[in-house]
Amino acid sequence: MMHFAELLTEEEVRRVHDASLEVLEGVGLLVRNDKARARFGQHGCRVDEETQVVTIPRSVVEHYRQAFPREFTFHGRDPSRDVTIPGDGPRVATSSAAPDLVDPVTGQIRRSRSDDIARIAHLVNELPGYDLFTVSTTADDAPPGQFHLSRYYPALKNCLKPVTCSAPDAAEAQDIYRLGVLIAGSEEAYRQRPFITYVSCPTVSPLTFDVDSTGMLMHFAEQGLPHHAISTPNAGMTSPLTLAATVAICNAEFLAQALLVQMSRPGTPVVYSTLPTVADMRSGAYAPGGIETGVLVMGCAQMARYYSVPSSGFAGLTNAKGNDAQSGFEVGMSALAAALAGADLVHIGCLLDALMVFDFAAAVIGSEIAQMLKRVAQGLSFSEEDLALDLIAQVGPGGTFIDTRHTLKRIRTAAFLPQVADRSPREQWRANGALDAHGRAMRRVHDILTGDNPATFSSDVDARIRAEFEDLVAGEAGPLRSAAVDE
Amino acid sequence: MMHFAELLTEEEVRRVHDASLEVLEGVGLLVRNDKARARFGQHGCRVDEETQVVTIPRSVVEHYRQAFPREFTFHGRDPSRDVTIPGDGPRVATSSAAPDLVDPVTGQIRRSRSDDIARIAHLVNELPGYDLFTVSTTADDAPPGQFHLSRYYPALKNCLKPVTCSAPDAAEAQDIYRLGVLIAGSEEAYRQRPFITYVSCPTVSPLTFDVDSTGMLMHFAEQGLPHHAISTPNAGMTSPLTLAATVAICNAEFLAQALLVQMSRPGTPVVYSTLPTVADMRSGAYAPGGIETGVLVMGCAQMARYYSVPSSGFAGLTNAKGNDAQSGFEVGMSALAAALAGADLVHIGCLLDALMVFDFAAAVIGSEIAQMLKRVAQGLSFSEEDLALDLIAQVGPGGTFIDTRHTLKRIRTAAFLPQVADRSPREQWRANGALDAHGRAMRRVHDILTGDNPATFSSDVDARIRAEFEDLVAGEAGPLRSAAVDE
Repeated sequence: MMHFAELLTEEEVRRVHDASLEVLEGVGLLVRNDKARARFGQHGCRVDEETQVVTIPRSVVEHYRQAFPREFTFHGRDPSRDVTIPGDGPRVATSSAAPDLVDPVTGQIRRSRSDDIARIAHLVNELPGYDLFTVSTTADDAPPGQFHLSRYYPALKNCLKPVTCSAPDAAEAQDIYRLGVLIAGSEEAYRQRPFITYVSCPTVSPLTFDVDSTGMLMHFAEQGLPHHAISTPNAGMTSPLTLAATVAICNAEFLAQALLVQMSRPGTPVVYSTLPTVADMRSGAYAPGGIETGVLVMGCAQMARYYSVPSSGFAGLTNAKGNDAQSGFEVGMSALAAALAGADLVHIGCLLDALMVFDFAAAVIGSEIAQMLKRVAQGLSFSEEDLALDLIAQVGPGGTFIDTRHTLKRIRTAAFLPQVADRSPREQWRANGALDAHGRAMRRVHDILTGDNPATFSSDVDARIRAEFEDLVAGEAGPLRSAAVDE
Repeated sequence: MMHFAELLTEEEVRRVHDASLEVLEGVGLLVRNDKARARFGQHGCRVDEETQVVTIPRSVVEHYRQAFPREFTFHGRDPSRDVTIPGDGPRVATSSAAPDLVDPVTGQIRRSRSDDIARIAHLVNELPGYDLFTVSTTADDAPPGQFHLSRYYPALKNCLKPVTCSAPDAAEAQDIYRLGVLIAGSEEAYRQRPFITYVSCPTVSPLTFDVDSTGMLMHFAEQGLPHHAISTPNAGMTSPLTLAATVAICNAEFLAQALLVQMSRPGTPVVYSTLPTVADMRSGAYAPGGIETGVLVMGCAQMARYYSVPSSGFAGLTNAKGNDAQSGFEVGMSALAAALAGADLVHIGCLLDALMVFDFAAAVIGSEIAQMLKRVAQGLSFSEEDLALDLIAQVGPGGTFIDTRHTLKRIRTAAFLPQVADRSPREQWRANGALDAHGRAMRRVHDILTGDNPATFSSDVDARIRAEFEDLVAGEAGPLRSAAVDE
């Protein structure tokens, strides 16, 4: 078991906690949702109805945080894909949610549609690096009133791994719940393993609860449906331009969110989930690819351990416009920083240009980065057999280990065997088309998307769903070529 | 001060130490250099002259390792560039040594020459990420008897940062020493700050000391000239196919090297320096880009701390054929893993295709990766002013921090401001030529190489040098265009 990298001393961790309590008690939060203000008020907080500011006494924080559960389970349609954090090491999810994507046939950027989500779900289901599918894009062809249903349906139809998606509004929440019940076969079956996890950003930094997402946060808690919130401060804009203060803002917002959830239903599982960034102050650009994103998630992971709650960070993001060296080092470095600091869940890759554009090849490359960071977190297997002193003696100085039984036994397992990273001699690489990582990843995309998808629903489940929802999108990937033809 | 990531428990660290002692005492080393065998014999080791195997009793290891100094200083021509490890954080060096490079004008791969080394030295002198210049290539135009002089001379002539290079043979060692003396102005001046550091691989894994490099290892120790050795096991080939055993082989070889140095001159500074790899057992390919390189360097960094010696790892390498996503994540992830585990010096980037080819753009990208990993290692600046609770109260929930004095003061310092990573809106990026990271890095290469080099020698120093060495290469970069014209 690794000892995680820690950027904060124990004293600094306590100071961040204490600073958050000072902020919650002294500054408070602007709570735009009426029901949330009332709920805070009913549970010992001070509410100023005129300013809509709620302040949370220290004793209230200390009381309700005792109710935070230590674990969070993401259910998949297939129970064998369930993911509980913290677990044996970091888990990896895709990231969300882009309006656009790079068309996998034409290479052109266009709006993403529900059939693209079906393709992405199929790809993510097959890619070994990902444990969760956070629905990567919106669906431009969503019928009226089905904005979120048009994302959840193709995602769930094509992926057995746990699906997470942004929270629908109240109007759609019942439909999506019904979708889950229809897939599970009964309300009871769905309730036992609710395989839809809603993710939302109810707080707008600094320290503001919005109306709609905050309403849904309470709703899902009341209903006992899996849900977690994210804090997303942007230093220099919505938090002070220091990493310490930005961690403190994340921490105060996490506490406020998690408290409201406990006040809604004590013992509801929470995730300390953040997407903290530092603005590029030369231009004001949003810079999630900056290494500071990784550093901030490292700090938040440490705070999450202080509260004994699972943590999650969007720490594998990039500002790159394509799959180039920038996307490689931005995604790889921040994600690894998060993992080595003990983040339990890392949202990685898949999106280019600061979360604006989904790219199929980026998803394949992100999966490989995910496998690499899990390899690091796995650490050094350590036993007398691993140390192999007898073998070292037997082979002797100047000998070779290539033909020993000890080596043969470990050929497939001793090291991660990459699929995107190329290790062939240059002549062979040239003979194979001289593809860069993007080109090799696109080959993999085409291999997967032109193959069968074992994850799709049975036709009777699908018929039940389609009978209930008029105008529902097809939810199917269709032939890959059609994406280009439709354009 | 960061708490480093640790993959080994304290008990496992002691076990690696103990396992190394068992190997040194029970298996021993094949020592092909006669003088080294004699020296080991004179200092309490058992020597079998027939097999050339030297075994080192545990008590001898424990005795001589008390003499290891805690620090190592790399001197630069400019004293302000001196680097001492361990220091405030990881230092970064280029990596070496490729026979070929990508011509910066034609983009074609060709042999590297001494004028290329002059260009590389100029570039590395200007790139902010690098603290040391490890001469990246060999010089194909080296006159007879000046194989190493043709690398050291253009490197030293064009770079004020500390220069490290592979160790010359005995015949050239005196010439290179003279080069240092001529640059310094006198033997005394050079001896005070010897700004040439020799680096060699005297051990061939597993557990074999060669003839020549081992001879030079003792020579430099005897002469009091800065030098350190590297251990380079390749798991599955020259060490067992486990990470634990490969760390143990690194550790045994480090101890043997450092002991021989202490036996040659007690108190000589050492560096626990490694380039450990795992072979890709699908093809036998050399895979320094594998994430296992980073994991192994993490383990070695922990062992170095056990001995209280500075550590160095070649952990920013890649198998990629160009500057693509693979080179980005391979260099970035292993280098960051090493830094977060406390490696004091990380050799990074610059070379593509498993150390075969130097690339100018890769050097620029590597510099940016170096700056990013230093940013992570810097951690979270933490003070009451950083926490900015007064400011958070003053701005209040829902406010903005963009126009505060606290923000304005930190605009240039709060976050790393990248030069290669692009954060512009896509339209602006297109208008700027739609360059990927490689293209942007090449622009930087051309900007630097067509600019003045403030690092070059004064003409009288150069005249003294050229008067002493007949046939010496020019050591000058010359116009960038000539590289293409010469081809």
